[in-house]
Amino acid sequence: MMPQFLEDGHVTTPGGWRAAAAACGIRRAGRDDLALLVSDTPCTAAALFTQNKVKAAPLLYDQALLARNADGIRAVVVNSGIANACTGATGAAAAARTARTVELALALPADSTFVMSTGVIGMQLPMAKIERGIAEAGEHLAANQGPAAAWAIMTTDTRPKYCAVRVTPAHGGAITIGGMAKGSGMIHPNMATMLCFLTTDATVSVPALDAALRQAANESFHCISVDGDTSTNDTMLALANGHAGQPTINDITSADGRAFLAGLTLVCQRLAQEVVRDGEGITRFVTIKLQGATSDADARRAAMTVARSPLVKTALFGADANWGRVVCALGYSGAELDPDRVVLHFNGLKVFEHGLPLDFDEEQAHQLLDVPEILIELDLGLGPGSATVWTCDFSYEYVRINAEYRT
Amino acid sequence: MMPQFLEDGHVTTPGGWRAAAAACGIRRAGRDDLALLVSDTPCTAAALFTQNKVKAAPLLYDQALLARNADGIRAVVVNSGIANACTGATGAAAAARTARTVELALALPADSTFVMSTGVIGMQLPMAKIERGIAEAGEHLAANQGPAAAWAIMTTDTRPKYCAVRVTPAHGGAITIGGMAKGSGMIHPNMATMLCFLTTDATVSVPALDAALRQAANESFHCISVDGDTSTNDTMLALANGHAGQPTINDITSADGRAFLAGLTLVCQRLAQEVVRDGEGITRFVTIKLQGATSDADARRAAMTVARSPLVKTALFGADANWGRVVCALGYSGAELDPDRVVLHFNGLKVFEHGLPLDFDEEQAHQLLDVPEILIELDLGLGPGSATVWTCDFSYEYVRINAEYRT
Repeated sequence: MMPQFLEDGHVTTPGGWRAAAAACGIRRAGRDDLALLVSDTPCTAAALFTQNKVKAAPLLYDQALLARNADGIRAVVVNSGIANACTGATGAAAAARTARTVELALALPADSTFVMSTGVIGMQLPMAKIERGIAEAGEHLAANQGPAAAWAIMTTDTRPKYCAVRVTPAHGGAITIGGMAKGSGMIHPNMATMLCFLTTDATVSVPALDAALRQAANESFHCISVDGDTSTNDTMLALANGHAGQPTINDITSADGRAFLAGLTLVCQRLAQEVVRDGEGITRFVTIKLQGATSDADARRAAMTVARSPLVKTALFGADANWGRVVCALGYSGAELDPDRVVLHFNGLKVFEHGLPLDFDEEQAHQLLDVPEILIELDLGLGPGSATVWTCDFSYEYVRINAEYRT
Repeated sequence: MMPQFLEDGHVTTPGGWRAAAAACGIRRAGRDDLALLVSDTPCTAAALFTQNKVKAAPLLYDQALLARNADGIRAVVVNSGIANACTGATGAAAAARTARTVELALALPADSTFVMSTGVIGMQLPMAKIERGIAEAGEHLAANQGPAAAWAIMTTDTRPKYCAVRVTPAHGGAITIGGMAKGSGMIHPNMATMLCFLTTDATVSVPALDAALRQAANESFHCISVDGDTSTNDTMLALANGHAGQPTINDITSADGRAFLAGLTLVCQRLAQEVVRDGEGITRFVTIKLQGATSDADARRAAMTVARSPLVKTALFGADANWGRVVCALGYSGAELDPDRVVLHFNGLKVFEHGLPLDFDEEQAHQLLDVPEILIELDLGLGPGSATVWTCDFSYEYVRINAEYRT
């Protein structure tokens, strides 16, 4: 029973979830920049946070909250525009106060609200504006406002990213998993300025939810690269409120656990790919399928090195079947490699084998690659390890966006 | 006694060295694309080769040659245009035949000639043209042809890179160290499409020359980054012919050894910086001086992570005092870090301290950074480790060059 995408599904499609957005005017007037996600009942929670040693204030708040109340979460509040990173004690107080404001406004228990922020770093949050926004959003919570929430959390994103799937457990009935994400620049494994929110009406124990989230992340957000930078605010959060009334999932290797994991992974992959498709300055979406590595870890290492090579990415921008830069990136990836065994295809055209390039028609290859979707297939010919990762090309526009971002 | 740069010094400024260039027409007619470097007497040799697992044919040839005859080297032949990488058995035979052609033309012993190639990969060398070029160059060897050799080895380089220093040993007299390099794209530690040739008239034992080369590389070519890619052909080669008649340097910690090492390091640093200054699409040369790390290795790691961050590099292109991207890169570098202790200056302007940005004037900072040379000073405030690395910004032009390189 494969999980199925729901048409127009979003983060509050699962039962017992409501959302709202508000325009606080944090950095720009007239656009929604605050989102509220609320569950009717307490949720179990799991989260993954940035590996960056510079961690934003809300992230530190959430880490501590997760440690003390992983099964009593009711809400998430997110603002865009300001990341509340590198903001010292003032920023830490602002994160705590934001959570408390939500709890008071919605009459929720203390310690039931996660806080997240995304945007420029080093600026303090305008708390009066945030508080007004929370009050306003609190009055408009509705089950159909998931898409509005996804719009409100955007920064340099050009479009919202959300979806939902339906999963059929072994014993009948249905559970729903929804999600939304933001992020376009600074995307790399370990998650860059990337926020991902996953909601479900399944009943999932905290350990099982944590295991499912980690595994889904490994198959999705840890397989993408836009530019190799990682940020201070990245968070991936899963919340399960049990509204569907299904038996509790305690083990992701059980039949229901596997079904749930498959659904969660599907949502995460869709969102991760959407993040890449919205990569800053992207002109081509690139899938790298690598097999024949000595291990899955080696396969991931090799594929990700190709995915983040600026020389590979600029060649793809130029629709250049530059097998040399791909093979070269494999060579410095640290993965086990015998160049004579590597086989490389670009969009189905074999260009490299037995340590040598094939005598292909450059102009024909250029036409084959001058398209929005590129598939790079690599076989290292050494063992059973495989990985699929997603990246994008590196264009003039990427440089322009990032040279002008703050000005 | 500090080593002194010699005005107009080059790779054949040291005694007993001659060079010549020739136009073989390897990929383009009418430009020199072959260089010959010859010592009047046998040299000791040391070399560092790319860490890339895909190694070009000449590099494999040289590794084997170095292993069997590290104190009997007489010549180096270098071609540009074609890298002789990913060329299989044909390429291996071509490298060996190139060396043998030099040895026959100049009546040198067998196994006395290094071979190097740089340019596009996957193409076979046109051996008839190479052989004619060697014959021609062999007839024009002269001590003043070092600059011509430096021109001949260029690929996407926009200018030749060469220099020489004079070193005064403890016991009087003088030794000279010359060098030339090529490389502009794919530059990163472990050396990208980068070739560096170091010549001296000092007498240096093989182990001492090897130790000196490794240490000089650590302070120079291993401290630069243009785009983070590393290539199949990188080689750094040092040859010492003893023409100056000074006592043999057996130990780089002796007085003469230290003097020699200081001179070699100075030449390598000048050449490495020239490579960065000629980085593809560079508009700003960036020096990152980092101190206060827990170790020198951590300092190097942190500084190089900043140096290769596309977000930092695009910000520098935009003359944006983007402390956030620098601090963020430190955070994911893997180096020990306490953000609250970091102090960051851009061109002398303090922008970050105590975990917080300072309230500096953005427009003034922009003007301060809208210059060809940028100094980023970082103090991690943790320990005695320090490192200095050099990099460049990331411009539209970088993308253009690399999207169009083969077409």
